[in-house]
Amino acid sequence: MLPSTSLLDSFQLSQLTTMLVIYLIAITAEAMSGALAAGRRNMDIFGVAVIAFVTALGGGTIRDMVLGHYPIGWTQHPEYVYLVIGAGLLTTVIARHMRHLKQVFLLLDAMGLIAFSLIGCSVALEHGYPRVVVIMAGMLTGISGGIVRDVLCNQVPVVFRRELYASVSLAVCLLYWLLSAWNVNHDINIAVCFAGGLAFRLLAIRLKWRLPVFSYQERWE
Amino acid sequence: MLPSTSLLDSFQLSQLTTMLVIYLIAITAEAMSGALAAGRRNMDIFGVAVIAFVTALGGGTIRDMVLGHYPIGWTQHPEYVYLVIGAGLLTTVIARHMRHLKQVFLLLDAMGLIAFSLIGCSVALEHGYPRVVVIMAGMLTGISGGIVRDVLCNQVPVVFRRELYASVSLAVCLLYWLLSAWNVNHDINIAVCFAGGLAFRLLAIRLKWRLPVFSYQERWE
Amino acid sequence: MLPSTSLLDSFQLSQLTTMLVIYLIAITAEAMSGALAAGRRNMDIFGVAVIAFVTALGGGTIRDMVLGHYPIGWTQHPEYVYLVIGAGLLTTVIARHMRHLKQVFLLLDAMGLIAFSLIGCSVALEHGYPRVVVIMAGMLTGISGGIVRDVLCNQVPVVFRRELYASVSLAVCLLYWLLSAWNVNHDINIAVCFAGGLAFRLLAIRLKWRLPVFSYQERWE
Repeated sequence: MLPSTSLLDSFQLSQLTTMLVIYLIAITAEAMSGALAAGRRNMDIFGVAVIAFVTALGGGTIRDMVLGHYPIGWTQHPEYVYLVIGAGLLTTVIARHMRHLKQVFLLLDAMGLIAFSLIGCSVALEHGYPRVVVIMAGMLTGISGGIVRDVLCNQVPVVFRRELYASVSLAVCLLYWLLSAWNVNHDINIAVCFAGGLAFRLLAIRLKWRLPVFSYQERWE
Repeated sequence: MLPSTSLLDSFQLSQLTTMLVIYLIAITAEAMSGALAAGRRNMDIFGVAVIAFVTALGGGTIRDMVLGHYPIGWTQHPEYVYLVIGAGLLTTVIARHMRHLKQVFLLLDAMGLIAFSLIGCSVALEHGYPRVVVIMAGMLTGISGGIVRDVLCNQVPVVFRRELYASVSLAVCLLYWLLSAWNVNHDINIAVCFAGGLAFRLLAIRLKWRLPVFSYQERWE
Repeated sequence: MLPSTSLLDSFQLSQLTTMLVIYLIAITAEAMSGALAAGRRNMDIFGVAVIAFVTALGGGTIRDMVLGHYPIGWTQHPEYVYLVIGAGLLTTVIARHMRHLKQVFLLLDAMGLIAFSLIGCSVALEHGYPRVVVIMAGMLTGISGGIVRDVLCNQVPVVFRRELYASVSLAVCLLYWLLSAWNVNHDINIAVCFAGGLAFRLLAIRLKWRLPVFSYQERWE
């Protein structure tokens, strides 16, 4: 058996507590965003639990399946499964009050995106993959949970259309890889990427930055 | 190479015949349900074959890919592939007569759901996974084929909205795990879970039991 | 680590150049078809890059994940990733001129379909899988990238409904397997399958050959 590729094994003990807290916040925030998406489709509470699970843990699962790193994290850490399903179900109770929490939620979601991206890069870097794979592993971890959520909710993934989201993941992954290549201390690297990514994402939301859109309506095929 | 995780290897010989028969009924019933879903989308017969295949064998494939158990069952048992594709194509011929068989079909489908769930639990339990993973492996096997079917047919998976279906899988998996933990004889365990699950599912259909629905229409995001 | 299952390792050096050129044409053509599909959904350029990537490299990735062959090709050949993302982004610039190139594009797409199918068969055959798995590996490689593209674009996969496309893949895979079983020289086998498949596909487009459609509108379930 290959070693577990979960967060816990990917960082030295010194960084463990901070990154673990951020990771737990991240999967909780993603689970709640999944539950809300399920609610928009009038799913039953089982559907809510599934969508919460895949949104929160699907990205890491897909990354590990693509890289062939078994066993997959959550199969070794059942407490993560309980956490995300619990967060999803709790959301059905508190959803009506959540609009007052919109700002908090967007902040948690941004922290989650960045934490996922850094964790994904870190796992791939550790296994000696080439640069583009490191960056794709980070982005896969960051955004593919949300893509599966949207596919299961039968809509075109918002990440392909929303204001800068995947681009934040890309920028964070590039910066992390660059600082790693320059042998910057890993603690400092993480801190810089996290702060920079968070600032970038919050500015993108505030200023409604978007990528150029490609529209092609001609159906000659 | 890891050993095959197919049904045949997962049970002692004494149980083999019964469970194999149920398994074959299960994949046949699921293949037919897939073919009908493809017909509702006016697919060609190739699409029918693909949807029949993923509905019947997709759940076990996803379970094995998530758990990293290779080779995947059907790659070692080509006869299952012929069976499900044959069942799918046959359905296109006999579909017009099938409404008279609705009751039979629902019964087969319920047997399939329960057989898949028990097989999934059994595979994961044998490999020493923690409880929540055993139960999720059972549910993955039971319901993810139907989820992929609905995604390929471009609709929100019915399992997230229909009367108790995934809940039956969950109940069966929990009961199976509980009786295993209590060291109940495996034959008796399977028989109890099967009978209990079937009764639960048929009652749910008859009495139209449903889970509470979570509706959330506010689009503040 | 298992050996890479990429194209480069699957063929003797003598065939390498021709098949590699065809493979590169294939992934480029598929990336462009993905980009056009993304444009029809008004995705941003990030979405275009993702859809180009999964359309071109998704089929091989899914085949390798199902067969458990790690590491997956593109993780060892980052240049393929740059190529397909580059081709996708380039498409956004030249799309308005592409309708004059429709014939060229359909030809490239047909070559891609056949090259993918042959590569997939070849990989599975080399690993000693049974016949039906060899053929399914070829078809998975040939068509599943396009299926994922359509799922992410929220539409029923065209491959389940279009004029003969998957059937061409099936015919090519069957012919390749048959000639292999007869110990026909591998170079000749590839050449015959390629020419035959291309003729079949171009005739199917020209004469609008389609498979029979299965329509089933009765909703008794």
